[in-house]
Amino acid sequence: MNNTDLQDYSHKRFNILTGEWVLVSPHRAKRPWQGQNEAVANDVRPAYDEACYLCAGNTRINGEVNPKYQDVFVFTNDFAALQKDSKSFSVEDGLLVAESETGICKVICFSPDHSKSLAHMSAKEIQKVVFAWQKEFSELAENPNINYVQIFENKGAVMGCSNPHPHGQIWSQSTLPNEVDKKNTQQLTYYNKKNRSLLGDYLAQELEKQERIIFENDGFVVLVPFWAVWPFEAMIVPKKRQSTILELNENEALQYAEAISVLTKAYDSLFKTSFPYSSGIHQAPTDGKANDHWHWHMSFYPPLLRSATVKKFMVGYEMFGSPQRDITAETAVKMLRDLI
Amino acid sequence: MNNTDLQDYSHKRFNILTGEWVLVSPHRAKRPWQGQNEAVANDVRPAYDEACYLCAGNTRINGEVNPKYQDVFVFTNDFAALQKDSKSFSVEDGLLVAESETGICKVICFSPDHSKSLAHMSAKEIQKVVFAWQKEFSELAENPNINYVQIFENKGAVMGCSNPHPHGQIWSQSTLPNEVDKKNTQQLTYYNKKNRSLLGDYLAQELEKQERIIFENDGFVVLVPFWAVWPFEAMIVPKKRQSTILELNENEALQYAEAISVLTKAYDSLFKTSFPYSSGIHQAPTDGKANDHWHWHMSFYPPLLRSATVKKFMVGYEMFGSPQRDITAETAVKMLRDLI
Ligand SMILES: O=P(O)(O)O[C@H]1O[C@H](CO)[C@@H](O)[C@H](O)[C@H]1O
Ligand SMILES: O=P(O)(O)O[C@H]1O[C@H](CO)[C@@H](O)[C@H](O)[C@H]1O
Repeated sequence: MNNTDLQDYSHKRFNILTGEWVLVSPHRAKRPWQGQNEAVANDVRPAYDEACYLCAGNTRINGEVNPKYQDVFVFTNDFAALQKDSKSFSVEDGLLVAESETGICKVICFSPDHSKSLAHMSAKEIQKVVFAWQKEFSELAENPNINYVQIFENKGAVMGCSNPHPHGQIWSQSTLPNEVDKKNTQQLTYYNKKNRSLLGDYLAQELEKQERIIFENDGFVVLVPFWAVWPFEAMIVPKKRQSTILELNENEALQYAEAISVLTKAYDSLFKTSFPYSSGIHQAPTDGKANDHWHWHMSFYPPLLRSATVKKFMVGYEMFGSPQRDITAETAVKMLRDLI
Repeated sequence: MNNTDLQDYSHKRFNILTGEWVLVSPHRAKRPWQGQNEAVANDVRPAYDEACYLCAGNTRINGEVNPKYQDVFVFTNDFAALQKDSKSFSVEDGLLVAESETGICKVICFSPDHSKSLAHMSAKEIQKVVFAWQKEFSELAENPNINYVQIFENKGAVMGCSNPHPHGQIWSQSTLPNEVDKKNTQQLTYYNKKNRSLLGDYLAQELEKQERIIFENDGFVVLVPFWAVWPFEAMIVPKKRQSTILELNENEALQYAEAISVLTKAYDSLFKTSFPYSSGIHQAPTDGKANDHWHWHMSFYPPLLRSATVKKFMVGYEMFGSPQRDITAETAVKMLRDLI
């Protein structure tokens, strides 16, 4: 593989997990920026904010009082996009097709400390978040109406996060969302053909090449995938194939927590700012099947491109054509790896 | 069809053009907003700005001087994401797959008047923009290395537009981008089965129902598609099936211009702001084939949700799961239709 070409000329790269392409324009990183600047997120916050509806002991909008929690606290979203008992119906009126969708949405506070983010927490503290994800996942998985559980975090105002208190969300539902459906298909096709995990084989290739690895420990690899879309996109992948996070033992949960810790700390130092991102865990459907083709993984999609204030806009061409990036995955890796 | 259910309960709607789903949560529009506010775009601009690299007579970064143009002015993008003569190569190294991609990127100024946007231009003035799109499209279509031409506009700083001077872009390339590829497949499948245009049949249904129509004239319908993702997303569709805008005669070009004019004016009055959006025209590939399954259309994806300063964030769940909207397409139509 002539890697120089990939650093010099426009090309597209194939995402093996979704079956879609990303356009890469390495030469374009030089273009001057005269557009919108974001606010820098370096506000120092107090450890407790009486106006925050996620802080321990405070009252939420619906009147419920948060417990005086010590580490992690989970509750059902007061403004859930999906509801457990909403009416079931289906529309098939010519080309107008719709299906009701039910589900359960939860909020998970990572720490009672309002001033923190995952980047400020120790691996041991993050391990408790992983345990909470496992507990929620396993409960939801048992619900016969829930066939998929999406764990995610929106971090930073620029990512639509409406409260800086460290927290993530869990949206669970009866059918597979678009992105998961694509990954399900791609992994299944590969598994049926080779009887091996798609992501496992990919990992073996990346570990041999050492061109896109940010960090690894005994159980996990943190890398910038070959087909990354966002400037500093990264992925955390367990070395052993596992369908869901339920398969993590205590020690593996700590290794996973360490991977999250190392990556979020590197992010924060990159532009000396509380680095915004959306992260999410893609795992096997909770449909009661074996799903041996699934290799769960966590992805981070951070919007910043050049500095704490200039982000990549996924607009015009990206919305109507394909995602497009300027700096290559390999350049991004080098910048992140230097910060560990 | 029991439309009340669609206004009351969470559901997903099927996009016939892409084959993907959007999650709709009507009850969620009530949730309070404590997150990021955007700057209001009501700055009054001069008709000429000496610092603007798109104004007539000014010098661009590469030293070229813009002509003293009177209506529309097109030039090749100085920082093009795709280049005509970049090297051709292909990577297939296990699960690392990449292809070089060449193309031509252009910028098109809609008016010499720095203070304007399409919403301030008459249908006659916009018709000149349509003529320019036709001219560029036809030239690019003749190039054997160009198989697809994406015309689009990013309007407003919040949509990554780096210069408020009224302008759009054209990115053309040798292969089909993801979104176009999906629409190509869906339209072809339908056409092969029914020997009719997918969008034509959809239009007939919408014209009968009159539930999602914003505006129509002899040649065009402006509507909010049943499967719209963005809060005030809209689509302009020619009533007659045409594969590309090259098939528009002079009168139809004026009808099309009127549709653009009506929609962009309604947008501006909705939140009393210069309404940001990305718009794009999806048309048949320029691969020399007949492409009779294609019915070209123009879509507008505006980010604003509740006011001039609060946008919809397509983050977390939307990135990892499916797009999600709060207000329904039908509510959005009513709000827009009242402004015409
Ligand atoms: O080409 P521009 O206006 O400088 O840049 C804008 O539009 C492009 C095409 O949609 C995007 O790739 C950029 O992220 C955006 O900032
Ligand atoms: O649920 P929140 O944090 O209020 O809202 C945020 O995350 C949601 C899930 O990604 C998005 O639908 C919203 O647009 C975003 O503002």
